[in-house]
Amino acid sequence: MEVRDCLVSAPGKAILHGEHAVVHGKVALAVSLNLRTYLQLKARSDGKVCINLPNIDTFVCWELSELKQLTSFLSDKKEEMQRLDAELVKRLREFIGVTNGNLDSSASAILAFLYIYLSLFGSGRSIIDMPSLTVSVWSELPTGAGLGSSAAYSVCLAAAFLCATGNIPTPLKEWEQTGRWCQEDLELINSWAFQGEKIIHGNPSGVDNAVGTWDIGGMLRFLAGKIIPLSRVPLLRILLTNTKVPRSTKVLVARVKDKINKLPSIMIPVLDSVDAISCTCEKVLTEMTCEPITGDHYNILEELIDINQHHLNVIGVGHPSLDTLCQVTAARGLHSKLTGAGGGGCGITLLRPETDSTTVQGTMKDLRDCGYDCWETSIGGPGVQQHFPSSVKEEIMEVLNRY
Amino acid sequence: MEVRDCLVSAPGKAILHGEHAVVHGKVALAVSLNLRTYLQLKARSDGKVCINLPNIDTFVCWELSELKQLTSFLSDKKEEMQRLDAELVKRLREFIGVTNGNLDSSASAILAFLYIYLSLFGSGRSIIDMPSLTVSVWSELPTGAGLGSSAAYSVCLAAAFLCATGNIPTPLKEWEQTGRWCQEDLELINSWAFQGEKIIHGNPSGVDNAVGTWDIGGMLRFLAGKIIPLSRVPLLRILLTNTKVPRSTKVLVARVKDKINKLPSIMIPVLDSVDAISCTCEKVLTEMTCEPITGDHYNILEELIDINQHHLNVIGVGHPSLDTLCQVTAARGLHSKLTGAGGGGCGITLLRPETDSTTVQGTMKDLRDCGYDCWETSIGGPGVQQHFPSSVKEEIMEVLNRY
Repeated sequence: MEVRDCLVSAPGKAILHGEHAVVHGKVALAVSLNLRTYLQLKARSDGKVCINLPNIDTFVCWELSELKQLTSFLSDKKEEMQRLDAELVKRLREFIGVTNGNLDSSASAILAFLYIYLSLFGSGRSIIDMPSLTVSVWSELPTGAGLGSSAAYSVCLAAAFLCATGNIPTPLKEWEQTGRWCQEDLELINSWAFQGEKIIHGNPSGVDNAVGTWDIGGMLRFLAGKIIPLSRVPLLRILLTNTKVPRSTKVLVARVKDKINKLPSIMIPVLDSVDAISCTCEKVLTEMTCEPITGDHYNILEELIDINQHHLNVIGVGHPSLDTLCQVTAARGLHSKLTGAGGGGCGITLLRPETDSTTVQGTMKDLRDCGYDCWETSIGGPGVQQHFPSSVKEEIMEVLNRY
Repeated sequence: MEVRDCLVSAPGKAILHGEHAVVHGKVALAVSLNLRTYLQLKARSDGKVCINLPNIDTFVCWELSELKQLTSFLSDKKEEMQRLDAELVKRLREFIGVTNGNLDSSASAILAFLYIYLSLFGSGRSIIDMPSLTVSVWSELPTGAGLGSSAAYSVCLAAAFLCATGNIPTPLKEWEQTGRWCQEDLELINSWAFQGEKIIHGNPSGVDNAVGTWDIGGMLRFLAGKIIPLSRVPLLRILLTNTKVPRSTKVLVARVKDKINKLPSIMIPVLDSVDAISCTCEKVLTEMTCEPITGDHYNILEELIDINQHHLNVIGVGHPSLDTLCQVTAARGLHSKLTGAGGGGCGITLLRPETDSTTVQGTMKDLRDCGYDCWETSIGGPGVQQHFPSSVKEEIMEVLNRY
């Protein structure tokens, strides 16, 4: 039996406020970033299983017969979703020949694909057994930039395979361009996506896949390991800028910890202030959904961005490239902060509803002249969705259909 | 009987840490700034009393007979030093024709001069009665820049007149270039200087005249209206930069108050952090006098400067001219913060003992190219001093002797 073709997408993630502070028990606000990852699943009839990830130059096909041999390693505890099936992961690493050390992005993407494919189709969870298919993925997100590209990929894999196995319904109605799943189905997608994240990241927080899945508000409050979806928040226009300055999250987290240990009386109040920024921002965004949006709302959002950017510099995760981002956008009356780990990486710039396209285009040109990548996008948009192909931008469909 | 000639100087003042926070009950550190005001008192024999203040284009002479008429208004309570003699101030304002409104710097300097002259020479406090004399003053300090130029002037006036009246001794020993008074004499100088400050500023904190007078450490801790001289601290090389951007301290203080009221949960922790910066700085400076000075000491001092400059931006008293100051000096590896009210005004840049003159000269050139005034000087130096004329720079003596 052939699988039904399926086209899904999931958003990236940005930290609006609270990066680093969250490591020290403070609130962080994670929001969906409307740069999306698109996944197309297409049935084949030649007994092959193929994956195409043009963003990371990864194109692989297997014979179904090869993959079927791997199902003998599948755990009996079919409903066990709390942790990875370590035996299966080990066998899959052997199968693709990466038994030692860290995985590169290509190997980890393949591993996540095979893990979810085999777990869902090869273990009696599916209405059809081990189908021949092609999965093609294209992402608008830069990879490895702290924007949740791997989570968006895992969420898409989980949603498409769960749909194909009949574990969740096809939500697309004929009169709609896009379809969304109900809360229960989203929870299933999220838990399988979390498995993918574990394979790719080892010990992920679960924030990225949660943002990629849910759209209750498009924003999550993250505190002491707990992820709380927030009530509806407004869609905010932003510029997302990638300074392309490489950084290590691990090194930056350690640097902040050192600073706190060295100057606790100075740094702990700064973390308290960051916490209050996240809480104030959440309050303002909630107000914006309940009452008419005014310039004052945006004034406060801008002020919070400026203050937090100073605080992030104080705790030691600033970078000259981010200073430049702030200066370039300030010259156009726009307010920016780093998002994520800092020390380079990405920044967000808030746009107002009335910010005109001349300003936006001029700012983007200025930033590109600095050597940065820059996108006009939004935060607070929908999580994972199913699409009619006609509702997806042509250039994306062209890439997906190329393979 | 002629007065004895006398040459004295007093330093300016800079706030090292805690500006604005001090208004909200936090610690501030005020330090002496080795840009000094010099005052030369010379006897005359023509029955005139003259004051020359070339910095503010003020040159005035009176006949002693005119001034003597004013002594009839002197209060009987000759030892009353706690508050201004309001009647005398009123008569002096009438005498110089400024009965209404705010005084300009020339009128307030003249008023302070006449007040201290008459109070000390015309009220039985003096060993000589109402001498004919010329007072000439030259200051290295910019006026109205928050650097305590009026306090340095008042301290010099008080020291020279108290010396001339015999209320304090002449501390200069023949084998020394400069002389300093004992603690008791300094307290008398300080209290008369505070009278001058009251005439000039209305309701001064007393910090500026205290810094100009005392040199126990050259640094004062200022908390909730209390001024506590600190134990000896090291002399630190700095650049002082005047952006020449005019600002109103009153407006800036009000702006900070508004921000705290608007975002208390965010701002109050920032003030706590500033408080901790002042306390940490005091601790490091004390350590630098007790143990060998190392690069680590300077690393922390630089870090505190950077953090506080961010905090001052957060509380709303930054200015693009100060951002430029920080960027220009950072490009040479130097660390700067605003000092005083902010919103323009002055900034200080810490120099290390090993900072070479190429770096210093290059930085000063860069800053002057921005349109700023810039001086290489030091903080933590001596308070009011008496000088042999030969110990004072030739160009200063030339100005003082010109009149």
